[in-house]
Amino acid sequence: MTTSAFVFDHWARAHQQHVEQVLARLLPGEQILPERLHEAMRYAVLGGGKRVRALLSYAAAELAGTSRMTADASAAAVELIHAFSLVHDDMPCMDDDDLRRGKPSCHKQYDDATALLVGDALQSLAFECIAETQAPQALKQVQVLAQATGSRGMCGGQSIDLQSTGKRLTRAELETMHQYKTGALIRAATLLGAYAAPDTAPALIQCLEQYSQKMGLAFQVVDDILDATADTQTLGKTAGKDALQDKSTYVSLLGLEEAKTLVEALYAEALQLLAGYGAQADPLRGIAKFICERPF
Amino acid sequence: MTTSAFVFDHWARAHQQHVEQVLARLLPGEQILPERLHEAMRYAVLGGGKRVRALLSYAAAELAGTSRMTADASAAAVELIHAFSLVHDDMPCMDDDDLRRGKPSCHKQYDDATALLVGDALQSLAFECIAETQAPQALKQVQVLAQATGSRGMCGGQSIDLQSTGKRLTRAELETMHQYKTGALIRAATLLGAYAAPDTAPALIQCLEQYSQKMGLAFQVVDDILDATADTQTLGKTAGKDALQDKSTYVSLLGLEEAKTLVEALYAEALQLLAGYGAQADPLRGIAKFICERPF
Repeated sequence: MTTSAFVFDHWARAHQQHVEQVLARLLPGEQILPERLHEAMRYAVLGGGKRVRALLSYAAAELAGTSRMTADASAAAVELIHAFSLVHDDMPCMDDDDLRRGKPSCHKQYDDATALLVGDALQSLAFECIAETQAPQALKQVQVLAQATGSRGMCGGQSIDLQSTGKRLTRAELETMHQYKTGALIRAATLLGAYAAPDTAPALIQCLEQYSQKMGLAFQVVDDILDATADTQTLGKTAGKDALQDKSTYVSLLGLEEAKTLVEALYAEALQLLAGYGAQADPLRGIAKFICERPF
Repeated sequence: MTTSAFVFDHWARAHQQHVEQVLARLLPGEQILPERLHEAMRYAVLGGGKRVRALLSYAAAELAGTSRMTADASAAAVELIHAFSLVHDDMPCMDDDDLRRGKPSCHKQYDDATALLVGDALQSLAFECIAETQAPQALKQVQVLAQATGSRGMCGGQSIDLQSTGKRLTRAELETMHQYKTGALIRAATLLGAYAAPDTAPALIQCLEQYSQKMGLAFQVVDDILDATADTQTLGKTAGKDALQDKSTYVSLLGLEEAKTLVEALYAEALQLLAGYGAQADPLRGIAKFICERPF
């Protein structure tokens, strides 16, 4: 393990723990009415996940030169949106998955109606926590996050995915789907962190746009590789589902080896984008490595 | 029909048509990817409903002395949130209702997964359209709307409702449930309109808070009365469901006559609150009459 990898592990763990505390404070307590809903919201959000989106917010904020505290709302909001999407995706009418982060998924632990409301309420809470900062840039952050979440973002990607099951997609179609489904929120996570600083330079925003585009794509390709190669216990969610559901993936389209080569290329391109920045970009470099080197 | 009733009918029709146009422009076209999701979103939002929440936004904005255009985003946003809640409420895991506004409900017309995504994407769009105005008060509006939507608002009310089916609620418990479930969004609709004006006086905000509280309650009592007395065709949704599902309602709790007396009292109190204001409060007076005098 190199020194720089060690430093990133430390940085990542500290920020994962920190955002966990921020989320725990932000989510209403289980003793507050309606108790069951609040318990289920906490179940769905806390105590699991790699918090990649929160890390992206914090890392972008660090590069933009602002404090960790300033980026707390961004980091929490993107994790809330991500958690809401997982809860709804796992429901019987969507992917019908019983396992999430190694635990029963929300609708299995509670019930379908509660899971539906958990997702809905987590989405509202994400926007509420950004608006509460009353920061001048918060309105821009709401806008970016709402676009990334809605029909031309994450929800739209899910819809394209549903329509595509059993169909043979071209690579362009597959990229569009994932750009909506995963890429949009990864982009938003990065930009929200950058906007947490009061006056982020347009050149930096542009660099982060490109960085997050590559990371969004890499993230999905790695996901497809893991689904095809890892086992359920390692993943913490059901493995091998893509092939079972006859979904187009980067692995089915490119083959395993070419998919791995693509990830390596995206990693190199991300580092290239950050080449002009100093040590303040180390967290973003570390995240790129983390995304592209997940075990496979 | 008195002159004042005629004027309100005209005002209401003009604003209903106007918000319909605003929503039609705001919702992505059916030819935009993902086409099926956008078609379903338009199906769920356009061409139906009394638009009471939009009318409240416009009426409050008028009393606060700002133009109709300034309140467009507020009016559209509250209708989008309302539409999202109807789509999710009608789903099989919730109220399981096949009929909405006299048409097949969204999951019947499309499918459960699409309905789930429609609701999710409509919620995002509501926040997006407020943020897009870039008005200085927009952040406050996002905050009020998010609170009204989430676990301590509309979604929370649904959760309490689910937990209450088959239980005998006290009047206080019933009021809390409806304050969350219906009242919170009616309050938000009114306040968003008031905040659309740049510098609304705290006294006016307070007056509108109280007005909207009474209207939220009246709205629910009338709903319970209609569910017990009207037929499905008149309602445009399935009638008699409350008794069938053994739900506590104002009718089951107070009896039909006392429920009607309560509505009359709330109407009188709303007019009393507006007594200090001139003709600019006429739309709010008209809405109060409209809510409290729905045919029963």
